[in-house]
Formats: sequence, C-alpha cells, structure tokens
Amino acid sequence: MDRILLIIEYKGTAYCGWQIQKGRPSVQQELVTALEKACGHKVKLQGSGRTDEGVHAMGQTAHFDTDCTIPHGKYPEAANIYLPDDIKILKSSKVGNSFHARYDAKRKTYLYKMYNSRVQSPLRQGLFAHIPYKLDINSMKEACRYLIGKQDFSAFMASGSEVLSPVREIYSAAIDTSGDEIYFEICGNGFLYNMVRIITGTLTDIGRGRFLPNDMKEIIGGKDRSKAGKTAPSCGLYLKSVEY
Amino acid sequence: MDRILLIIEYKGTAYCGWQIQKGRPSVQQELVTALEKACGHKVKLQGSGRTDEGVHAMGQTAHFDTDCTIPHGKYPEAANIYLPDDIKILKSSKVGNSFHARYDAKRKTYLYKMYNSRVQSPLRQGLFAHIPYKLDINSMKEACRYLIGKQDFSAFMASGSEVLSPVREIYSAAIDTSGDEIYFEICGNGFLYNMVRIITGTLTDIGRGRFLPNDMKEIIGGKDRSKAGKTAPSCGLYLKSVEY
Repeated sequence: MDRILLIIEYKGTAYCGWQIQKGRPSVQQELVTALEKACGHKVKLQGSGRTDEGVHAMGQTAHFDTDCTIPHGKYPEAANIYLPDDIKILKSSKVGNSFHARYDAKRKTYLYKMYNSRVQSPLRQGLFAHIPYKLDINSMKEACRYLIGKQDFSAFMASGSEVLSPVREIYSAAIDTSGDEIYFEICGNGFLYNMVRIITGTLTDIGRGRFLPNDMKEIIGGKDRSKAGKTAPSCGLYLKSVEY
Repeated sequence: MDRILLIIEYKGTAYCGWQIQKGRPSVQQELVTALEKACGHKVKLQGSGRTDEGVHAMGQTAHFDTDCTIPHGKYPEAANIYLPDDIKILKSSKVGNSFHARYDAKRKTYLYKMYNSRVQSPLRQGLFAHIPYKLDINSMKEACRYLIGKQDFSAFMASGSEVLSPVREIYSAAIDTSGDEIYFEICGNGFLYNMVRIITGTLTDIGRGRFLPNDMKEIIGGKDRSKAGKTAPSCGLYLKSVEY
C-alpha cells in the first residue's frame, strides 16, 4: 500500500467548500470520485484542512492510500480527466506511510485578493473582493507588523468555534499592490476558523481609517471578536500553499 | 441631444461576442437593455469594433445619444445596476456630437494571456489560454520585433475576410512574463479579423521551435494565411484599450 500526496488547485465558486456535505457539491467529493475511477478502488482522501464555501486553493494538499499501478507522479494525468475544469491535481508524489496531510502540516500560506475601484470588475468576479472605498495602503502595511509572532488570536476567531488553543504563530504577513489590485499574504503554523478573513476585514477597516494601524495591537490583545472588523468575503481567499 | 462615450469591461465567456445576434446573448444587447432602462428611451449603441465569442475586454468603448437627465459621468452608477456581473461600465463622459467610437479610434491595444504549465489551471479557466509545452520566451520576444511597422498583414487575416486594405500599422508588440503566465501585448492603428489570435498562434509556434524567430518576417512577407500558425483560442484575448 502506497501513500500518495496530492497538490490541488481549485476555483471554489461552485462548491460548498472542501469538505464532503450530503447533497451539495464539494471539492473533496469531486476528487474522491475521480481518484476512485482512476484507481479502481474506494479512496479515503485526507485534506490538509477545510476551505469554506467559495474559497479557492492554489495549493491545497491531501493524501490517500492506494495499491493501484498508477506511477506515483502520474496522478495529474490519471485523475484530471475525470475532474471538472475548476478542480485539477497539479502534482503527486509518494510519501511515507505515517505521513498525514493535516497533522504534519508545518506552515500554511493564505493569499487574499482585493480590487480597489469604483466599479466591480467583471473579469475579477468571484476571484477578488471588491473594495469600493479608498484604502490607505501604508496604514495597512504598518498594521501587518502587529500580526507577526506567537499570539492568542481569539479576536480573529469566528464565534462558536471550538479549539483546544487559540494561540497560533504567524511567520509573515504583508500587503502588496499591483495597480488597483491589493494582495494580503499571511503565513503561519495554523489558522483559526475564519481567521484570515477576519484579519482582512480588520485591515480594510484600518485602510479606510476606521481604525489606526496600531489599533491592530489593541484588537489582538483584547481577545474580543466583536472589536475586530467584519469577516471579508470568501471569494477573495486562496489557500496558497501547505508546507511539511 | 448629448453623445456619451462609455468605457466597458466584460468577461466574454457567456456571450456570442460584442455584436447583437438574434437568439444569442451578446454584450451589446445587455448594454442596450440596461441603458434603455436607465435612460427611459430607445438606445442605439455604437462600439469601437466587435469582439468574438469568448473574447474579453478591459476597455471596450462605445457611444450613444441621449437626452435623458443622467449626469454625463454617472452612467456606471445609473446603468450597472441593470447589468449582469460579467459586464460593467467603468466610465462615461460627454463627447462632441460628431465623435464616432469606431471611426475615430486611433489606436487599439490587445492583450493575450497564456499559462504555460503541465496542468490546466482551474483559477485561470476561461481567462488564459493553456500552453502545455515548454516555450522559449526569448525567441518569442525576438519574433515580436518583426511585427512593428506599417505592413500588409494578409498572412494573419482569417480566410474569407473582406477588407478594403490588409495594411495596418503596429506601434508596439511585446512579450512579458510573470511566473508561468505569459502576456503578449500589441498596439496598432487597427487589426484584421482574427489577426491578434493568429499572431499569437504563430508566436507560440516560434516558442516551441516549430518556426525560428526570423521566420516571422518571411511569414508576414509571404502574405499567405496557411503559412502562419493556428488561431489561438478566444479565451486568452482581451481588448485592453481604445485610444482616440
């Protein structure tokens, strides 16, 4: 029995998210169906974590076990033919039998894409969050600095979440721009439920002057979800990569 | 009666193209319907030119006449509410009564987006042409030089086209890259039917070594469509801007 690690890209618009849900189209179900056709046996697919409805991935990872004859590196060719255009396996490789796509993840990187313009962009529809008001990019860049480090991020956790610990370590967080496009990229050892989208909502509040850049420090310290910004829309969020 | 110039962005995937066609959804028809609702009278909309089925625009232009009370610059707000998410008016302004969106166009710029990778990209689906084979970017850049200038471009004209003259002047043509994305941008005083897509197909043939860079010169000189490359798919093409 071989354990195979997949790297997967998907456009999340048409799916209820990564996780299989009865009666709704999910990314995981599409992949399981395609892999079962390719392998000729039942497949149990373990992702690095869930992504929400409408959230995209440039590099989601998942593992499964198989004794089929497909060469380890050939799952893109073998399974993509059974996948819809909005989900594709980019790479596959053999990993050790104790490898676990979720528990062994050391770092995850998320990217959030915003488009700052008067009018919504048809070409960026479903791929960027539209921000119609003027943003001060320098304030947003400054606020990013307070995100770095090992901290209790309860302030950015969706209410009702149950986790063992709200402490996460953020290794990097940065704002970049290209014309009217704004990119927020954040890398950490893990993220609480909705954490990246709540941070992004808080950053845009800082960008529009509702908060000052160093209010970010206070908001984190307060550990109170209600003091942070709104949850930014799912369509701008991308799981960029998972490192092991 | 005021003449209004619109700048329009659209994702062409769902449309038969710019031009109104009976029984098929067109960009022009969507705009006419929205403008008629906003203005409260019949509208005749003249575009800068047609775009084909599946072709996108970042800056298509069109004019129409109205005696309604909408302020000249407020058509994005007034008409976008009646438009689908994949078509939006970006800007509007008053122009002289003799202005013509098609006949007064001095320069047009087209952008062609390619994604050079083993696997098709779900996130670039419908927005980039997928090129699965390795491309030599330097050869493609070199070949672009032969496109510049006032020349007979019959070699890049779809067969069956009827035009008064196949001579066009190209002001600039360049290849740029960002990771696995390749951009071909070309600016000229006008383009023959399918010209940008046939040039792009020829450039990718040069990139994969089917032709040498300076074969571009011979191909143009030969004025024979059958000697040029295939017509590249519509999904990678964008009308970027029209200058007056």
